[in-house]
Amino acid sequence: MDRDRQATSSSPDGAVRLVPLGGLEEVGRNCMFLEYKNEIVIVDAGLQFPEEATPGIDYIIPNMTYLESKKSNVQALILTHAHYDHIGAIPHIIEKLGNPIIYATSLTKAIIEKRQEDHPNAPRLKIHIVKNGDRIKVSNSFEAEFFGVAHNIPETTGVLLKTPAGNIVHFADFKIDYDDDDNPQGLEEFERIGRMGVHTFLVDSTNAEEAGHSLSERIVEKNLEEIFKKAEGRIIIATFASLLTRIAEIVKIAEKIGKRVALSGYSMKTNVQIAQSLGFIKAKQGTIISLEEMHKIRDDRLLVLSTGAQGEENASLMKIVTGEHRHIKIKPSDTVIFSSSIIPGNERSVQVLKDNLARQGAIVYHSKIVDIHSSGHAPKEDLKLVMELLKPKFLVPVHGYYFMRAANAQNAREAGIKKENIILMDNGQVAELTPDSFRVTQETVPAFYVMVDGLGVGDVEEVVLRDRRTLAQEGMVVIIVTIARDKAKLLKSPDIISRGFIYLKENQEVLEEVRKRIRGLISRLPTSQSVESDYLKTIIRDQIGQFLYNKTRRRPMILPVVIEI
Amino acid sequence: MDRDRQATSSSPDGAVRLVPLGGLEEVGRNCMFLEYKNEIVIVDAGLQFPEEATPGIDYIIPNMTYLESKKSNVQALILTHAHYDHIGAIPHIIEKLGNPIIYATSLTKAIIEKRQEDHPNAPRLKIHIVKNGDRIKVSNSFEAEFFGVAHNIPETTGVLLKTPAGNIVHFADFKIDYDDDDNPQGLEEFERIGRMGVHTFLVDSTNAEEAGHSLSERIVEKNLEEIFKKAEGRIIIATFASLLTRIAEIVKIAEKIGKRVALSGYSMKTNVQIAQSLGFIKAKQGTIISLEEMHKIRDDRLLVLSTGAQGEENASLMKIVTGEHRHIKIKPSDTVIFSSSIIPGNERSVQVLKDNLARQGAIVYHSKIVDIHSSGHAPKEDLKLVMELLKPKFLVPVHGYYFMRAANAQNAREAGIKKENIILMDNGQVAELTPDSFRVTQETVPAFYVMVDGLGVGDVEEVVLRDRRTLAQEGMVVIIVTIARDKAKLLKSPDIISRGFIYLKENQEVLEEVRKRIRGLISRLPTSQSVESDYLKTIIRDQIGQFLYNKTRRRPMILPVVIEI
Repeated sequence: MDRDRQATSSSPDGAVRLVPLGGLEEVGRNCMFLEYKNEIVIVDAGLQFPEEATPGIDYIIPNMTYLESKKSNVQALILTHAHYDHIGAIPHIIEKLGNPIIYATSLTKAIIEKRQEDHPNAPRLKIHIVKNGDRIKVSNSFEAEFFGVAHNIPETTGVLLKTPAGNIVHFADFKIDYDDDDNPQGLEEFERIGRMGVHTFLVDSTNAEEAGHSLSERIVEKNLEEIFKKAEGRIIIATFASLLTRIAEIVKIAEKIGKRVALSGYSMKTNVQIAQSLGFIKAKQGTIISLEEMHKIRDDRLLVLSTGAQGEENASLMKIVTGEHRHIKIKPSDTVIFSSSIIPGNERSVQVLKDNLARQGAIVYHSKIVDIHSSGHAPKEDLKLVMELLKPKFLVPVHGYYFMRAANAQNAREAGIKKENIILMDNGQVAELTPDSFRVTQETVPAFYVMVDGLGVGDVEEVVLRDRRTLAQEGMVVIIVTIARDKAKLLKSPDIISRGFIYLKENQEVLEEVRKRIRGLISRLPTSQSVESDYLKTIIRDQIGQFLYNKTRRRPMILPVVIEI
Repeated sequence: MDRDRQATSSSPDGAVRLVPLGGLEEVGRNCMFLEYKNEIVIVDAGLQFPEEATPGIDYIIPNMTYLESKKSNVQALILTHAHYDHIGAIPHIIEKLGNPIIYATSLTKAIIEKRQEDHPNAPRLKIHIVKNGDRIKVSNSFEAEFFGVAHNIPETTGVLLKTPAGNIVHFADFKIDYDDDDNPQGLEEFERIGRMGVHTFLVDSTNAEEAGHSLSERIVEKNLEEIFKKAEGRIIIATFASLLTRIAEIVKIAEKIGKRVALSGYSMKTNVQIAQSLGFIKAKQGTIISLEEMHKIRDDRLLVLSTGAQGEENASLMKIVTGEHRHIKIKPSDTVIFSSSIIPGNERSVQVLKDNLARQGAIVYHSKIVDIHSSGHAPKEDLKLVMELLKPKFLVPVHGYYFMRAANAQNAREAGIKKENIILMDNGQVAELTPDSFRVTQETVPAFYVMVDGLGVGDVEEVVLRDRRTLAQEGMVVIIVTIARDKAKLLKSPDIISRGFIYLKENQEVLEEVRKRIRGLISRLPTSQSVESDYLKTIIRDQIGQFLYNKTRRRPMILPVVIEI
């Protein structure tokens, strides 16, 4: 047998290979796979929202280069829940993977099928519905057992994978839910899994740095109900359309105290519709009304569920606040509630929203003021609790930046797991698991960014992003010099266009000086021979760039064009 | 007397005019003035750091249009403290104001004079040093009395302005400092001011939404000392160079437990030098060492004070983390402490920093983990305390977005101030004060953004920023068509340059299709006459723009250029 792992990328010695493709160096883009001989099982295929360093990008998806090259081995794609950071890549990758069977709960199925409608050329998905307790042989050597975990969308499922190396447990995104008396719910199930023996535990690190236990959803419900009762006019409550657990609670409370619920925002309508059809939201006929019916209802009987809690530019709440919404304008009697966390990077947009709302006289509640949001991710003490119940041999913190996973490694040590058995991997690293060992090899598979921008997948490269960043900071100046083909002579005055630099119309003297300098540059070239156009471009870029810098202390991108006639 | 306020902008009826020029719709750019007959007194002249909506801008300063037109009336510029959001505009505006006398404490004087060195063409400042308790007639009708407030830079001064309308109290940025036993310090002074009778109280709103009282600096000191003692290797502590109170505490603790202090970052060195020379930082000879001397000191005796706690790209901490720092590279034994808040918008940069540090094995502390930062701005309960002590007739929340000031208005109501006497003004609004009244008039003075970008002040306009935002999102495509002057005939193949759109080198077929379509467009023009070049540009922009959108779902900026030969 060939023992050189670099040469044969399958597992030579009967080990199970575990490879995270995303989610270990970011929040989002969650994806990993297990490989054993000629069988591959994937868990999740999420997207990552763009960062400051990737301007203009729609989102980032996991790199499928390796799996594409082995698509005939891909036997299953298991989805833990219906959040985009776990399912969002599907329309872009499923065909490349040979359209394998997807294992998902009914809610996840409905949501990925709905999204697939936006991609008419994507293949029809082959989905096997799973529910808690199901044990399914997903390939010759892998059996998956599904178990429920609490998160902020219903039907989130953890998965225990029985493999030739032992039981690998992936806990999805999870939190511990507490009842009215602050008792944790559902721990018996985790104890049972622990008793089955856990080889490797893959555990969410999103809130690994947060102290304490989860805030009970019962408290969130109680606080929301109190605010609802206090409101004298309409209630507008903004949250993620994907926080369906919260949304179901809100609808329930609204109904209980006699309010109608209008839905604003495409994803809010779609998700609520799906959740209703599957019974996750139970509302009487007439409780949920359309935006068009709102005017028939008294303000103090009305609750609007809206998207846009992050201050997204095109979302419903922003339109309401800026007066562009067709049905809803802010009134001073409105109570506006933000029932979600703020994703790092959106703080300023949310400030702008809150500012506009305050200016229009609305009463604003957010979770800094009162507990009206509980994260879907377990904090420190809950993470430790679960680690203690599962007693895994090996633990791999997943979902989060390195510092979050490092904090989770510390949690694991405090939960009694040996330091050498806690493994901080990177995306693309290959681990080999045998019944007694977990070894990160030197091998890696491609895991760098694949960016989706408009219709393009993977065609935006670093050079394009670098240009966008430069253009955003200093703008650009295009300088077009039209010269005779056979000698260095200007055929017309240089054309200059700039955008994002200074307003040239109002800076004619700068423009004139640039033209004068270009004439000077060209007059100093030998006229007897044709111009070396690359050389001319270089001196224009250097000298005009320097001149503009001296004049303005800005460095716009200089784009010289030489037209030879 | 002319009673039409629109026509004569001076105050016709003997009222004192109060005008905020900045700081009321943002955090930063703090500036306001009082005007009585032909006397104008300004309080603060700060800058605001750029926002996402203003890419590439260095900073924003208050609009001086009104004051410039009346510069002969400007009698005084009073500075409350040496933070850039209160002093940063000075080099750009002081000459326009006729270089009035500046009233400032010795530390503020030293810092603005140091900064003035970067602006060799700015005039020499005329500074009158003030200290607590000073009462100075700053103009014929205005007397200023200075009193100390606690903030995170020494010598922050509140100012009570005796005016013909009554006492106007400006509290600068402030917090309440608590002693070891959690007793508030320095309240007697505020009681005394209250007894003098306060007409209008201008009060900081930065933390108006935060519950409770200020965290005592004593607790911060105690926690820092504990972390310092626990550290087995070097300590690297990142904070704002402007938090000189904290920096002085850190130096004191370091000296007490036998550590040397090295300073990294230009502003850190400069500010510590100034604070030392004025006695605000008292360090024995040899405690503060240069970066070059670091290698002589054992790691466990070494503390580095560094700039860059916000993840700023060119600051010292970023260089240390990325390995570009000349003297400091991260070692796994290092303890890195973030002792400052994160300015909204910088969360992601700080995450990247923390991630890199964790990856290199450093132990990281920040204020989410342990109380090692106390804000310089009073929260809710402290604000109410001060309002109760001052018992002002009128109250104007300043410093902050509308929602922060609205929250402070609520605080004021809870502190017993009548709703109608709490005034939420906007930048540029003019209020008229008489002994018994505070009235916001219909008059406004220019208060829109003045942007500083490189050497340019005010020359970056909205159109330039809009272009930068577009370029950042979708990039641009320049299309150059060279045609004969007298007829619609292409003299050469169209030249196409793009940046930030797609990588055209790898998309030759798109490029070829664009060229083909342009040839088609031109071939359909009547060849018998010269081309209307604006018309040609329009159809290129529309049709090629549409083609690229269909092809990519992106809308780059299309810049057609028609060269006629």
